[in-house]
Amino acid sequence: MRHLLSTRDLGRDRIIELLDIAEDMADVSQREVKKLPTLRGKTVVNLFFEDSTRTRISFEAAAKRLSADVINFSAKGSSVSKGESLKDTAQTLAAIGADGVVIRHPASGAPQVLAASGWIDAGIINAGDGTHEHPTQALLDAFTIRRRIHGAASRGKGLDGVRVTIVGDVLHSRVARSNLWLLPTLGAEVTFVAPPTLLPADTTGWPATFGFDLDEAIDSGPDVVMMLRIQAERMSAAFFPNSREYSRAWGLDDARFSRLRPDSIVMHPGPMNRGLEISSAAADSVNSTVLEQVANGVSVRMAALYLLLSGDREDS
Amino acid sequence: MRHLLSTRDLGRDRIIELLDIAEDMADVSQREVKKLPTLRGKTVVNLFFEDSTRTRISFEAAAKRLSADVINFSAKGSSVSKGESLKDTAQTLAAIGADGVVIRHPASGAPQVLAASGWIDAGIINAGDGTHEHPTQALLDAFTIRRRIHGAASRGKGLDGVRVTIVGDVLHSRVARSNLWLLPTLGAEVTFVAPPTLLPADTTGWPATFGFDLDEAIDSGPDVVMMLRIQAERMSAAFFPNSREYSRAWGLDDARFSRLRPDSIVMHPGPMNRGLEISSAAADSVNSTVLEQVANGVSVRMAALYLLLSGDREDS
Amino acid sequence: MRHLLSTRDLGRDRIIELLDIAEDMADVSQREVKKLPTLRGKTVVNLFFEDSTRTRISFEAAAKRLSADVINFSAKGSSVSKGESLKDTAQTLAAIGADGVVIRHPASGAPQVLAASGWIDAGIINAGDGTHEHPTQALLDAFTIRRRIHGAASRGKGLDGVRVTIVGDVLHSRVARSNLWLLPTLGAEVTFVAPPTLLPADTTGWPATFGFDLDEAIDSGPDVVMMLRIQAERMSAAFFPNSREYSRAWGLDDARFSRLRPDSIVMHPGPMNRGLEISSAAADSVNSTVLEQVANGVSVRMAALYLLLSGDREDS
Repeated sequence: MRHLLSTRDLGRDRIIELLDIAEDMADVSQREVKKLPTLRGKTVVNLFFEDSTRTRISFEAAAKRLSADVINFSAKGSSVSKGESLKDTAQTLAAIGADGVVIRHPASGAPQVLAASGWIDAGIINAGDGTHEHPTQALLDAFTIRRRIHGAASRGKGLDGVRVTIVGDVLHSRVARSNLWLLPTLGAEVTFVAPPTLLPADTTGWPATFGFDLDEAIDSGPDVVMMLRIQAERMSAAFFPNSREYSRAWGLDDARFSRLRPDSIVMHPGPMNRGLEISSAAADSVNSTVLEQVANGVSVRMAALYLLLSGDREDS
Repeated sequence: MRHLLSTRDLGRDRIIELLDIAEDMADVSQREVKKLPTLRGKTVVNLFFEDSTRTRISFEAAAKRLSADVINFSAKGSSVSKGESLKDTAQTLAAIGADGVVIRHPASGAPQVLAASGWIDAGIINAGDGTHEHPTQALLDAFTIRRRIHGAASRGKGLDGVRVTIVGDVLHSRVARSNLWLLPTLGAEVTFVAPPTLLPADTTGWPATFGFDLDEAIDSGPDVVMMLRIQAERMSAAFFPNSREYSRAWGLDDARFSRLRPDSIVMHPGPMNRGLEISSAAADSVNSTVLEQVANGVSVRMAALYLLLSGDREDS
Repeated sequence: MRHLLSTRDLGRDRIIELLDIAEDMADVSQREVKKLPTLRGKTVVNLFFEDSTRTRISFEAAAKRLSADVINFSAKGSSVSKGESLKDTAQTLAAIGADGVVIRHPASGAPQVLAASGWIDAGIINAGDGTHEHPTQALLDAFTIRRRIHGAASRGKGLDGVRVTIVGDVLHSRVARSNLWLLPTLGAEVTFVAPPTLLPADTTGWPATFGFDLDEAIDSGPDVVMMLRIQAERMSAAFFPNSREYSRAWGLDDARFSRLRPDSIVMHPGPMNRGLEISSAAADSVNSTVLEQVANGVSVRMAALYLLLSGDREDS
């Protein structure tokens, strides 16, 4: 595996391989000394053109647990803010010897540009690009669902027949887009439930179904309900008059939560707006995997860094 | 020891144990290779809701010298600034596997909330909370006094009978509040000298005496004079017309410094306002322990991290 | 070698020793595990009073490849911005046990002040001070030229007879000033080509010649053309009406580039203003060493850190 840019082009076997390695990494994280020497002497650069402390520290923890050296590069206050091109930045990172680059960028497609450019030979991991993708988030979601369903017998398994309902601002969500491709490849059935204004105009080719009534979706008994984060800055009057009304129509409030099956799974990529898209009761319930998702994020990112940067790195 | 939140609930034996371990750590710091493998595989997060480069790098140096991995988390530009709660931040740190959290927070009591919450199992070290406490500062002060007085024979000893005068803005100083509890527990006699407007309204139960005349305090021959930092932003007209007048009434200027006993100790937590609360002659004298305090800070923080994060960690 | 402050006082033997060590470091960087244990237990502080992500990550990569612990200290938001003096900052770094300090400062001469002060015993590396010097940049430039000319036979060699033309804003360039002293010490002949307004008023004692016509300089067949970065904020009307006119008179555009000898070397310290002081064709040509310069920067900085911080550190 050379890069991890999108979940769209990942095959089922590759995904299951990565999730199985993540299981091994999760085991390591349970030990007294959580550190593996696997990536000693490798340098991972966190190249963040947008602030995201949560994602950055998850990758930083993952890389350090594999004994890699980590260099944080925030585009704020750097030459980038003086107009340096992505090309020059990439070539600089190549020249200082970066083996892996974890990139978050406001422009959709920037990680692909970087990987295809030839400017840098490092393994590139997309940590969120515009409204496009955030593949390690989808991988940790799949990992979390698989563990909840199959437990210790997860290795080798997909998500065949698992019914996943994803709710909220699909239009702007890279989490939604990454899960859109990944979960069906593993055999899951994905339904998006959203106000029409928060769905993309063109969803041709999406391996998913669509709904516009959250109550109906809840009552259909999904295995998984994944609530997306509402970003206040996007809550313009064009979409909704106010957050209270959004919450009433599209939030997983206590009433809706109580109608879910006892064994259904409630997910959220975090950080949550408690009381807006999800109630505290739902977020803190035994159904909720919010914290497992964060913990599994480190395991999945360790697996991705391992596949991209270890001696076993392949060209495809 | 599970957490280090306050000096108020630390017993004499516990404090002396910590200071004795800090002596061992100071010895290590004299070696050619200053690094110990003690905390290899442990992750320490510096969770700073306020900027404090000096305190952050002291903890960072301490943690790295024990071979821990360090992740710096500045609340600026993070989800926290987007409204994420302390609970969600704490649970995120737990999920990524933080073994220790060094927290600085503008709200008094935040570290206690974190430790009592059950949101995170990590050892919590209070690195300054509002105007409440800054326990490692008091510990390094005690360590510094003990070393000056007992030298190589410090181990096992307290500060019985040592007379410490703490001068300045007691009202806003967490350094003052931490020393207030710690030093008397070790047997020292503490006197606060401050303008009435810079003393708390209620000092009931404080194991200390109070004075309002610095010249009188100086002439009474204290073993230790600890000058607190004046924070310009708090020097409103309500307290003092200007810094010149403050300095005349409450500063350790050259004249007052010359009247101290030759073996008295002059302390300051830094960063100093030279010419305001302390003259350069006093700050740079052989009586001054300002630099020893910084160096001892690393040893004391190594000891605290060791007690909280090593295999020997206890539940109380 | 105690400090690396300026190239002016470096003798030829010392420079060649450092460049030869950098050759060894470059070899290490080609290995599977690029890490050396040389500086294990040493602490390097990057003390940056100005933002410079490129320089900071180059030093950070160099220090980590030698197994040093790295602490980044940005003066923004630190006590420094609250008025702490360089003296107090230096003493703090000494007290926390810094073995090396890499300092970038807007004031010319600040690193010299630090090294001469006695405030701190650490090895000081000047990473750019005002418009004064940036010695590791000149060392990496020399290293790059030597490698281009002598290849695998570089060790032990100088740059005797190599003709280097440095073009652009000499007035504000610390890169120019550092090369001014270093290259002639190695035997190179340096010519500065610049608009009169961008040359210092007094160049007495400079071991260089001066020109005011870039076309003439190009046609004289230099071995090396080094383009300096134009800083937009300095492009005031006093110097030039606009960047277009600057480019026409003083840029290495395609026409000028085509008239260079096929084996001439084109250098730039980065980040480049493509289309302003250098055309993309020139920047990306086989003649260009821009990326080699960045890569060699890590090797040269490893060599400098090694000389200053390893057990072999000398007093002169």
